[in-house]
Amino acid sequence: MTATRPTISEERYAARLAAAATSAGAHGTGALLIGVGADLRYLTGYVALPLERLTMLVVPASGRPTLVVPRLEALPARGSAAVAAGLVDLVTWTEIEDPIALVVARVAGIPRLAVSDRLWAMFLLRLQTALPAARFDLASGALRDLRIVKDDDEVALLRLAALAADRVIAQVAAGPLVGRTEADVSREIRERLVAEGHDSAEFAIVGSGPNSASPHHEASDRVIRGGEPLLLDIGGPLGGYGSDITRVLWVTGGDSSKGPDAEYRRLYDVLQDAQAEATASVRPGMPAERVDAVARGMIAAAGFGPNFIHRIGHGIGLEAHEEPWLVEGNGEALRTGMAFSVEPGIYLEGRYGARIEDIAICGPDGPIVLNEAPRDLLVVDG
Amino acid sequence: MTATRPTISEERYAARLAAAATSAGAHGTGALLIGVGADLRYLTGYVALPLERLTMLVVPASGRPTLVVPRLEALPARGSAAVAAGLVDLVTWTEIEDPIALVVARVAGIPRLAVSDRLWAMFLLRLQTALPAARFDLASGALRDLRIVKDDDEVALLRLAALAADRVIAQVAAGPLVGRTEADVSREIRERLVAEGHDSAEFAIVGSGPNSASPHHEASDRVIRGGEPLLLDIGGPLGGYGSDITRVLWVTGGDSSKGPDAEYRRLYDVLQDAQAEATASVRPGMPAERVDAVARGMIAAAGFGPNFIHRIGHGIGLEAHEEPWLVEGNGEALRTGMAFSVEPGIYLEGRYGARIEDIAICGPDGPIVLNEAPRDLLVVDG
Repeated sequence: MTATRPTISEERYAARLAAAATSAGAHGTGALLIGVGADLRYLTGYVALPLERLTMLVVPASGRPTLVVPRLEALPARGSAAVAAGLVDLVTWTEIEDPIALVVARVAGIPRLAVSDRLWAMFLLRLQTALPAARFDLASGALRDLRIVKDDDEVALLRLAALAADRVIAQVAAGPLVGRTEADVSREIRERLVAEGHDSAEFAIVGSGPNSASPHHEASDRVIRGGEPLLLDIGGPLGGYGSDITRVLWVTGGDSSKGPDAEYRRLYDVLQDAQAEATASVRPGMPAERVDAVARGMIAAAGFGPNFIHRIGHGIGLEAHEEPWLVEGNGEALRTGMAFSVEPGIYLEGRYGARIEDIAICGPDGPIVLNEAPRDLLVVDG
Repeated sequence: MTATRPTISEERYAARLAAAATSAGAHGTGALLIGVGADLRYLTGYVALPLERLTMLVVPASGRPTLVVPRLEALPARGSAAVAAGLVDLVTWTEIEDPIALVVARVAGIPRLAVSDRLWAMFLLRLQTALPAARFDLASGALRDLRIVKDDDEVALLRLAALAADRVIAQVAAGPLVGRTEADVSREIRERLVAEGHDSAEFAIVGSGPNSASPHHEASDRVIRGGEPLLLDIGGPLGGYGSDITRVLWVTGGDSSKGPDAEYRRLYDVLQDAQAEATASVRPGMPAERVDAVARGMIAAAGFGPNFIHRIGHGIGLEAHEEPWLVEGNGEALRTGMAFSVEPGIYLEGRYGARIEDIAICGPDGPIVLNEAPRDLLVVDG
């Protein structure tokens, strides 16, 4: 329960920065311009606040990287792994300086630049105005191949996160549930996610009865009753790396006549088989879209094709949703070390729905499933 | 304590959408392209998840607005105020469609477009590629004058948020504090912010002893002791509108010999006077930078000029930090209905620091301060 939490070493950050520079060069990009977010954390360990004040890591294809930060973030920036290790030069700006000019001074004359995918338009448009001759691409072109394969420390953190989320599912399934609002159960889940080690609770979807048929329903004031499903889709980062699990309980309210009806049983069985088969199919070299197709084929064959309205999964790591996308049209081959969700769903709008979700790693010989919570439809008193 | 929480009416959304279209036209912008975030919520009431799947509101300078959303967000999007009221057409896209094409089809041929300031580069660069002849500006050009002045409902929500944060400060000041880590107190604050009505706890800075000298220190494993200051800077949204308060406690641990030293007393008195004067100076027509200058002049005169290392304040509303910026160089005149923080600080790096922060509205005759928590240095046993 209290496995040691790995920390990413100085050597790993040095290797990541070097690989990013090499990859940028190989993509014809003269420098990467990385704003706050997952790319910055991946490359430096710096967890920056998403401020209107510009924070930007400049990684030239050759030469030392520079981190430009507002002066009042100097202390935390200095304490970040890559800066503390001397891998990155720190430049601070005061409230009356122009941070864009500090960045521009470091990349002027470079014909092709790449910005982090989630950099805000307010910064990108100013960079484009200041550097009218430069072409701007997305930094994911250079970084995706690095981030998409998780190293051992990253897998260990994803596993800790998954097991922590598993424990929360078990705790909530123990009840009480009937008579409480979805929002109240959601609050409990958020507290438990943090209590079990998460940095924060990022989402705690609680969908009761007909709300289980809306994939991104969050939590409402609807009161949970006996005789209906309760869908829980919960997660958040732990040491920066995400958990994301979905399980469905069937709540009886202690009345044995209020168990799942035959149609729900059938729907759930189809879904569970599809989720298991899709997961089992994972292999290095397999096109990402095939995982989706395996489940989709089984669900369609059972007559629920139009009710599986989203892709089967998304990558996970420092972002809750990141590459690879397990979706029709993505022929990219799975690689050992990729981490992603496998989460088919069947939704009968206005009535009820179900989704089963695990986080899996593509291992050298097949899937390594991180979640251990049981996948059977859990019938509980609530 | 349980004042009714106002809801923004259908008529307000209609008026905001109409004003946004008019303002876009007046700025020479043919259409606003608004991604997830505060602008979208302001215009439609839709609180969208920040997904890698594109959600975009298209507001043409003339004609009906359209909201493009991923199909699996259809239910919450349809339930948002502006869509439910029929003010906005809804268009959904499935996992294998290209949402950029749906947006482009609605704005093709328009020479000037404007995107929301926080739109991600991954979307902006794709729009620029698909519309190579269009010029892209920031939507804040058209929207800032709308959002910067708060209406009565917005002020009411800001006040509820401020008073809820005030209550949390009082609860935490009651202790216990000594012997606990900053992180533990921060967790307590986050729980209390939600318990007092916040939608979520956005930040809960707890800076003890020397950590009070780092403006954006968050919370560490440092244990709080007697004989040192404890800086609390906390807040989050309530009904979407932010609270943001900073207060400093001096913790004695019950030992009366461990009260604030003479230098800290002096520092705090200078700060408190400066914060009060700067707040009192607020008037419609006054340049925003003057509020900063009032406090900065007083702090500099007392010899602490180099220790006030940030601007005095930021606007607040649907974003925790938004316009107007109360900073040197911003000559924009304050207007009735503007909402902002007034938060000077004095930091002696490595030793200790202080900051006092309230949220104020620029009223027709002067400031309307929303926070009611006492501003004196609160000496507590802890």
